[in-house]
Amino acid sequence: MSFRATLQTIVEGVEGGFGAIIMGYDGIEIDAFVRQDSGFDVQLLAVEYATVLKEVKNTVDVLKSGALEEVTIATGRYRILVRAVNDDFFVVLLMSSDGNYGKGRFLLKREVPALLAGLQ
Amino acid sequence: MSFRATLQTIVEGVEGGFGAIIMGYDGIEIDAFVRQDSGFDVQLLAVEYATVLKEVKNTVDVLKSGALEEVTIATGRYRILVRAVNDDFFVVLLMSSDGNYGKGRFLLKREVPALLAGLQ
Repeated sequence: MSFRATLQTIVEGVEGGFGAIIMGYDGIEIDAFVRQDSGFDVQLLAVEYATVLKEVKNTVDVLKSGALEEVTIATGRYRILVRAVNDDFFVVLLMSSDGNYGKGRFLLKREVPALLAGLQ
Repeated sequence: MSFRATLQTIVEGVEGGFGAIIMGYDGIEIDAFVRQDSGFDVQLLAVEYATVLKEVKNTVDVLKSGALEEVTIATGRYRILVRAVNDDFFVVLLMSSDGNYGKGRFLLKREVPALLAGLQ
């Protein structure tokens, strides 16, 4: 399955899913699936948060906290769920603030092996 | 109820809770409750992550995403749950990676009004 198909499975599988992106800590996107009606510039958000993610990863590494697994950020307008794929890449799911948060986390975790396989 | 008593309620109310701290985005702690047997330097972790939190908050503000509500970070060794109290302060809960994540989120959210009352 292509990256995009896997990302589409995630976004369409969760109520309130706006889009999903697989990208590197350097901010460069590999692939994305974004709903046309999301009303968000999902790509812009992902790039902005990639900087934050890099900072989180550095802190986790410095503190010898084991591998970074998951980061979530909830604001008044949306939720961002991030799951590490490997040491270089992560997948981001953007969803509405009233979307099904638990389902989003579950789908991201479930699809990591498929994304990882595509990176080999 | 004092800040410390509220923080203790949170930490002791969740399986796997190590400690909780109320602090500012400037990295200065107001109060903390840390279990003696946690095996973590909870204060050091909180200070390190305060820098990350400040970065997250800046990004959220720049992107006009509404107020920052919650941030969670999961690593191989622990989970950090952060809940905004107001625009200047937040509360951090450090717990084991196999602790009750949902309960931790619930308790943080439930106790925000008590912490907020203490800041008035």
